Amino acid sequence: MIPQTLTNLLQQSLPFYHNLTASERELLVQHATLANYQEGQSLHFGNNDCIGLLVIKSGSIRTYLLSEEGREVTLYRLGENEVCILSASCVLKTITFDVFIEAESDCEILAVPSSVFLSLSTNNIYVEAYMYKLATERFSDVMWTMQQILFTSFDKRLAAFLLDETIKEQSDTLTMTHEQIAKYLGSAREVVSRMLKYFSTEGILTLSRGKITILDKKKLRSLL
Amino acid sequence: MIPQTLTNLLQQSLPFYHNLTASERELLVQHATLANYQEGQSLHFGNNDCIGLLVIKSGSIRTYLLSEEGREVTLYRLGENEVCILSASCVLKTITFDVFIEAESDCEILAVPSSVFLSLSTNNIYVEAYMYKLATERFSDVMWTMQQILFTSFDKRLAAFLLDETIKEQSDTLTMTHEQIAKYLGSAREVVSRMLKYFSTEGILTLSRGKITILDKKKLRSLL
Repeated sequence: MIPQTLTNLLQQSLPFYHNLTASERELLVQHATLANYQEGQSLHFGNNDCIGLLVIKSGSIRTYLLSEEGREVTLYRLGENEVCILSASCVLKTITFDVFIEAESDCEILAVPSSVFLSLSTNNIYVEAYMYKLATERFSDVMWTMQQILFTSFDKRLAAFLLDETIKEQSDTLTMTHEQIAKYLGSAREVVSRMLKYFSTEGILTLSRGKITILDKKKLRSLL
Repeated sequence: MIPQTLTNLLQQSLPFYHNLTASERELLVQHATLANYQEGQSLHFGNNDCIGLLVIKSGSIRTYLLSEEGREVTLYRLGENEVCILSASCVLKTITFDVFIEAESDCEILAVPSSVFLSLSTNNIYVEAYMYKLATERFSDVMWTMQQILFTSFDKRLAAFLLDETIKEQSDTLTMTHEQIAKYLGSAREVVSRMLKYFSTEGILTLSRGKITILDKKKLRSLL
């Protein structure tokens, strides 16, 4: 990749770029790398590595907890143009837990090494604010998952609702907005959108403007 | 309280204070309040309020999740001189979940109203970095709790809880109901009662009305 393109990529992906000094930009561009990872490849293995900030250019990655007995719990997934901060957890002093991260599909990833990211975040308050803000986004992702795990009720309710609708409409394509569904279920639009997005990453349905197409009713029924 | 003392308190408690401009300091000092809350009083009720940043001067507060069915899961507790950020969750754009916060004992709390905190964090990057850094600390607290719930067997969790309480209360006799313990551990009263009864048959503790007396801490510790 020619340096100019790498610079463009960094500029597009990292909102703090315009707050960097000329020498900080140089440091970033000189050390950032673009690499390919294969499906299933480990990107971050608990405490044992800290490769840095990762911008996913294509593909998707999965962050999960691993118990001593080998049990996995998926916390969240990140896809194209999303940024992974927990792979640089050694840089964030307030992160005291270990997670595991792997490529869920073949990925192209732009990486800023931890040493460079540490230097930038120590010397530039905008980089520091960015990294903690991003970590707080992941906090929200994890809380959503935790509520699903602890209380489970909403995914079941939404699954039941969608199945009912396909019968009612005698069609696997439902024409309704997330707002409408939220009203039916006495929930918030954001909650519905998030769950539908989750269903879509699970291959249960596809989403398009004002439409939901059910692809895998069996899987949807298994949620009940 | 005379303003000078309030200024001192804010200066001691909020690390971003020295990064504020003179007019920002004035805004902060003019609107911060010191108030007393009673044990059990609600400080933050899901989506319905957003009182602001809270500095706990004395006492302790508890942050928990609440299911639609009314089940509580304690996420973490904060004590003297700790700062609660989720009570200002409306200011943090990346926080998309609801928690509940209550006074666990009688508390004296220094509060910076959300409107003031929003203004400071919007205009001052140091305040923004501070709030997201603090939220990331809470992320770590929640991850610890989540790992306990997902991966640790209930006898270990109850043993750890009882040992922590003896240290906190500086007494081997704990005054709390099984219902309260169940709330703290995100479990059901029946599960707690059953395990306590088992501990009692093992000679680890004795149970009496509303009281638990630890007899054998060594044995309790061996469960961890």
